Amino acid sequence: MDHHNSLISLAETLRHRRQRLASLIDFPVILWSGHSSPRNFPASPYPFRASSHFLYFAGLPLPNAAIRLEAGKLELFMDNPEPSSALWHGEMPKREEIAETIGADVAKTMSELKHRGRDAASIPVQNYRTTLVQSQILQRQIASPYDLEGIDRELAKAIATLRLTHDAGALMELRKAAAVSIEAHKAGMSATPQAKLEAEVRAAMEGVIIAHNMTTAYNSIVTVHGEVLHNEAYHHPLQPGDLLLADVGAETPMGWAADITRTWPISGKFSPTQKDIYDIVLAAHDACIDKISPGVEYRDIHLLAAQVIAEGLVNLGILLGNPQDLVDMDAHALFFPHGIGHLLGLDVHDMEDLGDLAGYDAERKRSDRFGLGYLRLNRPLKSGMLVTIEPGFYQVPAILNDANKREKYQNLVNWERLSRFADVQGIRIEDDVLVTSVGSEVLTAALPNQAHAVEDLVGAQRW
Amino acid sequence: MDHHNSLISLAETLRHRRQRLASLIDFPVILWSGHSSPRNFPASPYPFRASSHFLYFAGLPLPNAAIRLEAGKLELFMDNPEPSSALWHGEMPKREEIAETIGADVAKTMSELKHRGRDAASIPVQNYRTTLVQSQILQRQIASPYDLEGIDRELAKAIATLRLTHDAGALMELRKAAAVSIEAHKAGMSATPQAKLEAEVRAAMEGVIIAHNMTTAYNSIVTVHGEVLHNEAYHHPLQPGDLLLADVGAETPMGWAADITRTWPISGKFSPTQKDIYDIVLAAHDACIDKISPGVEYRDIHLLAAQVIAEGLVNLGILLGNPQDLVDMDAHALFFPHGIGHLLGLDVHDMEDLGDLAGYDAERKRSDRFGLGYLRLNRPLKSGMLVTIEPGFYQVPAILNDANKREKYQNLVNWERLSRFADVQGIRIEDDVLVTSVGSEVLTAALPNQAHAVEDLVGAQRW
Repeated sequence: MDHHNSLISLAETLRHRRQRLASLIDFPVILWSGHSSPRNFPASPYPFRASSHFLYFAGLPLPNAAIRLEAGKLELFMDNPEPSSALWHGEMPKREEIAETIGADVAKTMSELKHRGRDAASIPVQNYRTTLVQSQILQRQIASPYDLEGIDRELAKAIATLRLTHDAGALMELRKAAAVSIEAHKAGMSATPQAKLEAEVRAAMEGVIIAHNMTTAYNSIVTVHGEVLHNEAYHHPLQPGDLLLADVGAETPMGWAADITRTWPISGKFSPTQKDIYDIVLAAHDACIDKISPGVEYRDIHLLAAQVIAEGLVNLGILLGNPQDLVDMDAHALFFPHGIGHLLGLDVHDMEDLGDLAGYDAERKRSDRFGLGYLRLNRPLKSGMLVTIEPGFYQVPAILNDANKREKYQNLVNWERLSRFADVQGIRIEDDVLVTSVGSEVLTAALPNQAHAVEDLVGAQRW
Repeated sequence: MDHHNSLISLAETLRHRRQRLASLIDFPVILWSGHSSPRNFPASPYPFRASSHFLYFAGLPLPNAAIRLEAGKLELFMDNPEPSSALWHGEMPKREEIAETIGADVAKTMSELKHRGRDAASIPVQNYRTTLVQSQILQRQIASPYDLEGIDRELAKAIATLRLTHDAGALMELRKAAAVSIEAHKAGMSATPQAKLEAEVRAAMEGVIIAHNMTTAYNSIVTVHGEVLHNEAYHHPLQPGDLLLADVGAETPMGWAADITRTWPISGKFSPTQKDIYDIVLAAHDACIDKISPGVEYRDIHLLAAQVIAEGLVNLGILLGNPQDLVDMDAHALFFPHGIGHLLGLDVHDMEDLGDLAGYDAERKRSDRFGLGYLRLNRPLKSGMLVTIEPGFYQVPAILNDANKREKYQNLVNWERLSRFADVQGIRIEDDVLVTSVGSEVLTAALPNQAHAVEDLVGAQRW
């Protein structure tokens, strides 16, 4: 790894980010990385994940550290490890070395932060213990990141403005995460014929991520029950006629994420019904990506997916009527109940810690329409934004057996015809798409998504 | 998986545990499982780990649940998922079904716990958010689990009494964790010749654990810097002359842990100096296990390891003098600075959330001797206890370059001779040993530890 060069550019990247921040706000900012969260006892913590806002401006996942930003100046606050910790954790880089690496102007102990908090803005971290420290230093109760007020809200808006589009430093990391995630998916497909359980395919995929010294960006979904959208069970056996849905993404050591979903036939061959639905989902996926360009409303991308899916299901005889009318009535959402995607960056749902502040343009609110309420992003696209495009088709019992929905959509669905697609419980195809000045670039394009290409990868020799 | 049978025995196991608890205390107890801990935003949590004390009496890793135990009766408190959650998480087992599975007498909502807390004892969980709920329900400030008072302390002592020795249900789980961990270590050895980075060996090992639908019981150590005792970096390249130290253990879905360390030559062949030291560590390991038997003081096992290591290092000309005198002066601790092991069960350092309450017999305190201060267990052994035996040899710069130690031990170490062992930075050999009525049983015995057998496994074909 080109440690030295990437560190030089890290300092430059960070300097540029805080200069941009300084152009948006005129008050000091303190951001905390957070404490590690204990798992079953304090000496057995979860792997430490620094707060994403801290990572954006400090670059490195330093535990129990803080930075103060004012007028483009970066002050680092952290304590050097106790001498006795060298036995357990080895010699760690000292505060001053880290300050140099990240281009901090000053390096101080945590206790020196004590009188620097008044009038500073901040964003509460996810670790509850750290929020107590935050309240203490800022000398005020710090609210939940969902409903910030005053300068904290101004800060969140400014950070969202910056983080909405990605600079070269971020893109370098995001491309690394994408490349490793692509390898992980190939490994999963390749391991499928020998696997008996979902867990074995998950192991093949996460093994690639671990081998590259990365971590998963979110809890992997590797399931024969794709209709459970956030399924985190891995104990089901693999049956030849089933589809496997894998939503797995890597995160680089600096915290940048990828997010990819593929769905493949366990036997290596889609059934005709599976192929029919797969091709509809893929058509929606491709149409959305074709439409991505600066200025386009992401909500319209979502509605385009809905339209393509409705058309496809009408053609298959599953939905009845005019596709546009069906979308207006949310009939597509019976089978595609979630949004077309979300922002991607340091978080897999980028900045979702701030609620919809980053995902939704000012004055916009979540729709209460069945087919739009789960849309996580509702803004015009801008060059430099990274979004996921992830249409899907699912037969969710909680939706299709819901009495109200059953009644409302009784005559818009050919339930008898639908029953012939019983071997299609859940399909999703998800790629990571960068909005560019001329359109888009699919960061995950090296992973095939056409049905025949996916079939070819199932059981393919990797070496 | 024999789901049905194992559930029947689970209810019986749990009934027996709470009956034993009822024989030790006469006040009601409420134990919480805990909330999940958010990672970078609330919808992206760390994988949920229920509190170990909860798991011991409730058996299943139920998030946001509580149990109330009184006079052998088990009441389960948990809320059924919101209907809308079925879309994201599928149909979950309902409270009543879970109650039946675990043999609870009653199943109630969390809000019904509200007026049941007064006069109940509890143990604070690791999740800070949950401790606020605990304080609210118990109507008193709940202290840290390190310094419990009153009935909370009585409860902790009673639970420690139970958890110190393992019943058949626990042993069934512990053996599963051991078996998978053994496979993980074999996979790591086998993957080493093809690996370029520590991370790749880690991936091979954790891949086995994930494939068995288990998790790691603690953050894995897979390092060419074994002298850093809790090294969690995995980015170092593997060099042919180096040793790789891997301390990796699996945890079953019900929370039971294994903890195994092996050290192997990356080239597949120990150098003569590496082999010399390896055999000393193994001799200490074997001597300790031979000595394990009910009634034996664990501290004496530790001192036996110190003695064997001191003897070996005298024989190699590294230490100078009489081994017994060297141990009395803690000279062995220059190279073996940690304790010989710890309790193992639901936690890898079992019940360490309670500080030394479980590990140390009443009235015993940590020694301030250099060679004894890190001993985590100081009790007479009892049949049914599971302990690790993990002697080691390390060249820790923070110890060997420490001016005070250098002066104190100047004439007891042949520093010139030591310098010839520069290719031995860290060796540890760790197995999980059950104390039986007639002596001991090594649960991890199926993983070879003799130098030549380890060499044979490096690069061995797995299939």
